[in-house]
Amino acid sequence: MSTTIGQVIRCKGKHLSIWFILLSVFVYNLIYHRCNQIELNGAAAVAWEAGKPLVIEEVEVAPPQKMEVRVKIHFTSLCHTDVYFWEAKVSLFEIDHCLSLEVPNLDLWVVESVGEGVTDLQPGDHVLPVFTGECKECDHCKSEESNMCDLLRINTDRGVMIHDQTSRFSINGKPIFHFVGTSTFSEYTVVHVGCLAKINPLAPLDKVCVLSCGISTGLGATVNVAKPKKGSSVAVFGLGAVGLAAAEGARIAGASRIIGVDLNANRFELAKQFGVTEFVNPKDYKKPVQEVIAEMTNGGVDRSVECTGHIDAMISAFECVHDGWGVAVLVGVPHKDAVFKTSPLNLLNERTLKGTFFGNYKPRSDIPSVVEQYMNKELELEKFITHEVPFSEINKAFDLMLKGNRPPSRQIGQLKPDCDSRSDLGTCELMTEPTGNHSMSFVGLDLIRRLSVKEPQHQLAYKSSATEIIQDPFFEGVNWLALVH
Amino acid sequence: MSTTIGQVIRCKGKHLSIWFILLSVFVYNLIYHRCNQIELNGAAAVAWEAGKPLVIEEVEVAPPQKMEVRVKIHFTSLCHTDVYFWEAKVSLFEIDHCLSLEVPNLDLWVVESVGEGVTDLQPGDHVLPVFTGECKECDHCKSEESNMCDLLRINTDRGVMIHDQTSRFSINGKPIFHFVGTSTFSEYTVVHVGCLAKINPLAPLDKVCVLSCGISTGLGATVNVAKPKKGSSVAVFGLGAVGLAAAEGARIAGASRIIGVDLNANRFELAKQFGVTEFVNPKDYKKPVQEVIAEMTNGGVDRSVECTGHIDAMISAFECVHDGWGVAVLVGVPHKDAVFKTSPLNLLNERTLKGTFFGNYKPRSDIPSVVEQYMNKELELEKFITHEVPFSEINKAFDLMLKGNRPPSRQIGQLKPDCDSRSDLGTCELMTEPTGNHSMSFVGLDLIRRLSVKEPQHQLAYKSSATEIIQDPFFEGVNWLALVH
Repeated sequence: MSTTIGQVIRCKGKHLSIWFILLSVFVYNLIYHRCNQIELNGAAAVAWEAGKPLVIEEVEVAPPQKMEVRVKIHFTSLCHTDVYFWEAKVSLFEIDHCLSLEVPNLDLWVVESVGEGVTDLQPGDHVLPVFTGECKECDHCKSEESNMCDLLRINTDRGVMIHDQTSRFSINGKPIFHFVGTSTFSEYTVVHVGCLAKINPLAPLDKVCVLSCGISTGLGATVNVAKPKKGSSVAVFGLGAVGLAAAEGARIAGASRIIGVDLNANRFELAKQFGVTEFVNPKDYKKPVQEVIAEMTNGGVDRSVECTGHIDAMISAFECVHDGWGVAVLVGVPHKDAVFKTSPLNLLNERTLKGTFFGNYKPRSDIPSVVEQYMNKELELEKFITHEVPFSEINKAFDLMLKGNRPPSRQIGQLKPDCDSRSDLGTCELMTEPTGNHSMSFVGLDLIRRLSVKEPQHQLAYKSSATEIIQDPFFEGVNWLALVH
Repeated sequence: MSTTIGQVIRCKGKHLSIWFILLSVFVYNLIYHRCNQIELNGAAAVAWEAGKPLVIEEVEVAPPQKMEVRVKIHFTSLCHTDVYFWEAKVSLFEIDHCLSLEVPNLDLWVVESVGEGVTDLQPGDHVLPVFTGECKECDHCKSEESNMCDLLRINTDRGVMIHDQTSRFSINGKPIFHFVGTSTFSEYTVVHVGCLAKINPLAPLDKVCVLSCGISTGLGATVNVAKPKKGSSVAVFGLGAVGLAAAEGARIAGASRIIGVDLNANRFELAKQFGVTEFVNPKDYKKPVQEVIAEMTNGGVDRSVECTGHIDAMISAFECVHDGWGVAVLVGVPHKDAVFKTSPLNLLNERTLKGTFFGNYKPRSDIPSVVEQYMNKELELEKFITHEVPFSEINKAFDLMLKGNRPPSRQIGQLKPDCDSRSDLGTCELMTEPTGNHSMSFVGLDLIRRLSVKEPQHQLAYKSSATEIIQDPFFEGVNWLALVH
C-alpha cells in the first residue's frame, strides 16, 4: 500500500492515541526547525520558449542547500533586461529577475528557510534579491572599488545553483533552470545568500522592489561613480527608467543643471519630475550632440551618465564632459561588437571615462542603506512605478515593457500577487488567510497545508510513497523505528 | 655728441664732485628700488631654424610687466618635449623649457625682479618655472580635480607674454619668441608669475630642476591620478624618464609589483633602480601584451600608467587593468590623428580610463611639496640625472636626448652654468666673483657691470645716447633738471 506522510498523520489521528500526539508534536518541531528541508510548490512564470508568452505553472521548489536561502516572493518588478533575455536571447526556460517581496497584513515571513552555512539571515527577514551578488570573500568583494563579485556576478548562462550545479526548480521532476541568479517570477525561489540584501522590515516591498536592478543601477551610476558635486552640471543620456534614476541621483546630489538627452522628445515632460532641467534631442541639431552640450555649458558638463547602451551615445557622453575634471560614466549594456572610439587627446585633457555595473552597489552592504534613503524620503521611488500588474498577467507586463518607448514610460512594471488568478494553485489562500500563529514559519504552515489540502491530486502524498517521503532529507536523522517502538 | 649714462657716470667721476656722489647715491637707489625697470643682457640658446643646432646668443631681456617675474636661470633640464618642439615642429625661434635655477655660493637672487601685481614672490625667492601655470582664479584652478589653468595652460603657439602679446626677448631690437611659457635656456627669462613655483631655498637646484616637467608628470600620474594602494600591482608602459618617474611614484606608494613594459629590453636593468620588479617586452610574445599581463596578475594589474604616447600602448595599458577596480592612466602625448579603440564591455566591467597632464600637479600649489618630498629623502631625484652638460654645449644635450633610446637612458640632461664658455659674454664673471654686497639686487650689480664693462662694444651706453637712456622707463619720474640745478 502506498502511503504518504499526510496519510500517516491522518491515519494516526483516527486513533487519537498518545502516539499520534507525540508524533504530531515531533512533526511540528521538525516542521518548525527543519522547514528548510522540504520541497514547496508554488506558481511560477515559465518561459518554455524564448520570446513566447510566459506560462504560469506550478513548480516544485527544492529546499535551500549550502549557502542558499528560499524566499517567498510577494512583489517583483520588471526590467528591460528581463525582456532582453526573454526575447532571445538565452536558452533558459525560466524567466525571472529583479524582484522583491512584501509581507502584507499577515506578517508572513519573507525569508522562508535557509540552508547550511547561512548565518546572517533567518526566516522572516525581509530581503531584496539582486541579480548580482556579494560573497564578501573574493578580491572584488574585499575591494572598496568594485562590486563585481567573483563568485556571484551576473552569469546569464548558469541557470543552476553554484553549490551543486543543479536547479532547485522542477515540474513533475523535470528541472527548470534558474534565471540570472534570482528567479523571482515565482512564488518561491531559491537564491544564494550572497544575492540577498537584508532590508528594513518596515519598508513597503511594493515600492522598494524596484531597487533590485535598474533603479539602483542608474542611481548608483550617478551617486557612487560620477559623484557630481553640489551645484554641478550633469548630462543624462537616455530617459528610460535607468536614465531617470541617474537623474534622480543627480537631483539628490544637488546638481544645479541636469540635461536630459533623448531621441524621444515625448519623454521630456515626464523627466521633469526627476529633476531634469534642460533637454536636448540630438535630432534637432546638425552637429554632434557633444558639441551642443559643450556650447550650452561653457566647455562641457561636469559629469555625464550614459544609459542607452548605444555606442554613439557612449562616445557622445564621454566627449561632452568638460576637460580637466569631466567624468563620464557608461551604464548601458553595449552590443557585443560595438567599438568605443575617441581621440586620446580627449583623455590627455584630463577627462575620465568609467563604466559601472549595478551602480557600483554591493548588494548586501549597500542596498539596505538605499532602502533607508527611501524611508527617509530622500529618494523618491513612487514616481518610477508606471503600472501595477497582477502576477497572472505577467505577459501584459512584458508587453508594456516592450511598448515602453511610448511616452510616458519609465519601463518599470510592478507585479503583485493576484489571488483570483492563482487560487486554483492553492497558494493565494494561504497568503491572505490569517493563521493565528504568526510565530510559526511559513514553511511549516505550508507543509501543513500541503498535507491537508482537499484535492487529493494536490496532496503532498499524492506522488510519493511514505517510504520515499521518510527518506526525504527533511527527515534525515529521525529514528522512525525508535519513535514507533 | 652722443653720450651714454655710463659715460655720464664716468664723466662725473672724473671731478669727484659732490654732484657725482649725490648722483651715485641716487642712481644706486634707483637701481635698488627699480631694478625691475631695466633691460638685462644675458646668454640664451636660440634656435634660428627648427631642427638646426642652437646658437648661444646674447639677448636683451626686457623688464617684467604686469604679473610677470624675471628670473635668473642657474640650472635647467632637458626634456624630450624640448627636442620635439625643436625638431619640427613649431615655428618658434627660441627653444627653451623645463628649467630651474641655482644660487651657488654667492647668494645671488633667483627671482631677479617682479612686475606689477606680483605679491607672492619677491627678488631672491627660489622658484621652479613650469611650462604650464596656475592663475588661481579660473574654473580649472578652482577645481580640485584639474590643473589645466584656463589662462596659462601650455600653449606652444603663443611665443609672447599674455599681458601685452609681445616678447621680452630681443637681439639688437629684433624680437625673439618665448618658448612654452618659460624660455629657460637663457640666462634670464621672464615668466608669468602663475608659472613659477616658489620652493624651499635650501633645495639644491641642480637636482630639483628636473621637477619642472617630465619627472613630475610621471610621478604625479601615479601618485595623484592612478593612486595605487599599498601592496598593489602597477604596470608602467615605457621606461623613459617619465615612465621611470611613474615607477618611482609606484615605489613611493608602496606597490608590491611594478611591471615595466618596454620594447627595449636594455632598459630593464636600469629600471630596477626605480623599483621595477618585473619586465615584459611585448616583442617576446605572440599574444597582446595585455593578455600577458592579465595572466601574470590573475586577471590584470590594479593600475597602469602609459608613458609612451603610442596608441597601441594606450589601448594595452587600458585593457591590462583588472576588471572591477583597475585604473589606467594615459600620460603620453599621442599623435593627433590617433584613435583610441576598445570594446565598451571593458568599461562596463568597471575599468576606469583617465588622462593626465603634468601629473595633475598644480604648479604653484603642489610642486613645492614635491620638492619637500625630495628634501625628506622620500623621492630620489639623483638617479634620474644621466648627464651634466655645460650650457655652452646645449646642442650636445639635445644630441644625447636624441640618442636617448640607447641604453641606459633616462633622457634627462641637466644643463649647468659654464663659465669658460660664456666668459666672452661677460656674464660668468659676475656669477662667480664675490661682490661684497649681497644685499644689493643682482639687477643693480648687473647694471653697474653693464655701465662699467671694459669692452666699449659691450657697454650699456654703446648703442644708445644719454637722451635715449634717460627716457628709458627705468628713469621714469626722475626730474633730471631739478637734480642738476
